[in-house]
Amino acid sequence: MTRTIIESKSQTAIIGFDQPFCVIGERINPTGRKKLARELEAGDFSTVEADALAQVAAGATMLDINAGVVYNSNPNPNETEPPLMQEVLKRVQALVDIPLCIDSSVPAALEAGLQVCEGRPLLNSVTGEEEKLELILPLVKKYNVPVVAISNDDTGISEDPEVRFAVAKKIVERAADFGIPAHDIVVDPLVMPIGAMATAGLQVFELVRRLRLELGVNTTCGASNISFGLPNRNGVNAAFLPMAMASGMTSAIMNPMHSLEMDAIRAANLLTNNDDHGSAWIKANKPKLAEGEVEAGARGARTGRRRRRS
Amino acid sequence: MTRTIIESKSQTAIIGFDQPFCVIGERINPTGRKKLARELEAGDFSTVEADALAQVAAGATMLDINAGVVYNSNPNPNETEPPLMQEVLKRVQALVDIPLCIDSSVPAALEAGLQVCEGRPLLNSVTGEEEKLELILPLVKKYNVPVVAISNDDTGISEDPEVRFAVAKKIVERAADFGIPAHDIVVDPLVMPIGAMATAGLQVFELVRRLRLELGVNTTCGASNISFGLPNRNGVNAAFLPMAMASGMTSAIMNPMHSLEMDAIRAANLLTNNDDHGSAWIKANKPKLAEGEVEAGARGARTGRRRRRS
Repeated sequence: MTRTIIESKSQTAIIGFDQPFCVIGERINPTGRKKLARELEAGDFSTVEADALAQVAAGATMLDINAGVVYNSNPNPNETEPPLMQEVLKRVQALVDIPLCIDSSVPAALEAGLQVCEGRPLLNSVTGEEEKLELILPLVKKYNVPVVAISNDDTGISEDPEVRFAVAKKIVERAADFGIPAHDIVVDPLVMPIGAMATAGLQVFELVRRLRLELGVNTTCGASNISFGLPNRNGVNAAFLPMAMASGMTSAIMNPMHSLEMDAIRAANLLTNNDDHGSAWIKANKPKLAEGEVEAGARGARTGRRRRRS
Repeated sequence: MTRTIIESKSQTAIIGFDQPFCVIGERINPTGRKKLARELEAGDFSTVEADALAQVAAGATMLDINAGVVYNSNPNPNETEPPLMQEVLKRVQALVDIPLCIDSSVPAALEAGLQVCEGRPLLNSVTGEEEKLELILPLVKKYNVPVVAISNDDTGISEDPEVRFAVAKKIVERAADFGIPAHDIVVDPLVMPIGAMATAGLQVFELVRRLRLELGVNTTCGASNISFGLPNRNGVNAAFLPMAMASGMTSAIMNPMHSLEMDAIRAANLLTNNDDHGSAWIKANKPKLAEGEVEAGARGARTGRRRRRS
C-alpha cells in the first residue's frame, strides 16, 4: 500500500490510498495576488500568517508555501526568492503545526527551503525536463524528502494523456536511478480546463487510475484548473474532486476555505472507506444546536433530560 | 456504445455511456408517504399531479410511477394495484411529456401499466428470483420494453459484490434466452447504506465498472440509500452521484427536487464530456441578474448598452 510520509516538527501527514484525502492549502502564493506580493517585498508577513491559520482552521492537511515574488527592486528571483522562501517557511512553521510543501520553480529557493524547513516537507516540484531532473532529484535524495512530479517535459505539456503518462513514468524511473522510491513521488498528471478541452475530466480520471495501478504512485493536482473560465467554479470543483477520488487521486493543491469542495471531500472520504465509522462526517455535520441548547451527550445525557427542546 | 431507449408518446430519453445522466424522478411513490397513500385510495390525484410537474420542472429525465398502496378497504394489492397503476399512469402521461418508468413488485400491476402506457416505458423491475424471471421477462419481450434488473435472487441480497455481479450476469443471460438484448437491461447493483457497511461505496463503484466493461449494460440505483441514517444526507448523495458517474453509472432513481444533487450531476455530466460545449452547465449557472437588470443578449445586445450595471 503506497504511503507518502510528510512531517512537520510535531505532526505527520500521510498521503495514501487508504488515507483521507490530503488537502494541500494553496493560499500562501503571491501568484495573481498583487497585494500579497507587495507585502512580501516590504517584509510584511501578516497576510501569510493569517492565511496559514485560516487554512489550518478550515481543515487543510498540509500548507503549500510559494514565495515567487518578482521584486520591483530586483527582478532576479534567483537572488530574492531563496531568502524570502526561508523567511516565509520560518514564520509559518513557528505558527502552525501541520507539515509544509516547499513550492518553487527556482531550484535555489527549493534548496534554501529545505535548509530551514523542520521535519520532512514535500518538495514541489520536479518535471520531466532534463535540467529539472538533474537539479531537483539530487536535492530529493540529499534531503530524503518526497517530491511532486509534474507530467510535462522539454516538449511542454502534451494534450495526449499517453504522453503525460510516459513523462510520469520517466520521472519515476529516473528517480529510481537516484535511489528514490516510487512512494516518495506524488504525480501531478496535469488538469486542463474542461471549458477548453471537453475530455479533460475523463483524461485525468483515467490517468490517475493508471498511475495508481501501473506505477503505484500517489497523485495530486491543481484542482481548480478544471473549472477555469466557467461560472460557478466551486460547483464544478466540488464534483471533480469526488470523481478524481473515486478514480484513485489521493491529494490536491486547493483552497480549503471553500466549504462546498471541503464538504464534497469529506463525503468522498466516507464513500472510499477512509472515514472510520463515519466519525469525521458526523462530527462535521452534526445537527446545529439552537441557541441555549445543550450539546447532546455533554449535559443532556448526564441529566437525563430531553436533548432537543421542541 | 450501449444505449437504452425509453419513449413517451412524444419524447425520447436515452440512457447511455455517451449521454447526460438519466435522472429518474422517484417522488410518485406512496411508500413511506402516508398522506399520498390515503389520497390515492380516495381517488385524489392532486399530489401525484403536482409531483409530476415539479419533478419535470426540476430537470427529471423520466418519472418513476409506483402505485404500491395497501388499501385499508382491501388488503390484496393483486386486486387493487393494477387499476390504480393504470389510473396514475393515465393522469401523469396526460400532464407531462417525458417518458415513464412503471414500478411495482406486483407483476399484474406491471402488465396493467404496460397496457395503458404510451410509447416505450422502462419496466421496474425484474430480479434474479426464479419466479420473477419467469413472470417478468416474457412481459419485457411481449411489450418490447427495457427493464431494470435488481441484483438479488432467491437467496436474498448478498453483501458480497461478486455474488451481486453473478446475479446480474444471470439475469442478462436469461434475458438473452428470451431474445432480450443487453442494451435493454439496466442493472441496479444495489446500494447499501454506507453507515452500515463501510465498503458500500467502493463496492458500487467497482460493480458499476465491471457491469459496464464486462456485460455492456447501463446501470441505475436508488441513490439515496447510500446515506441512510446519516446527517446531511444530501451532502453524501451529492458526492456519491459524481463518484458513481466517474465509475460509469448512467442513471439513478432519485429526488430531482434536491438542488445540491442536481448541481453535482450537471457538473459531472460536464466532466464526463456529456455536456456539449458546457452549454447545460452555463445555462444552469449563468450569473443571476439583479432586479431591474436586462437579460444579457436579450435587450442589452440589441441596444448596445452595457449589459451589467455597476
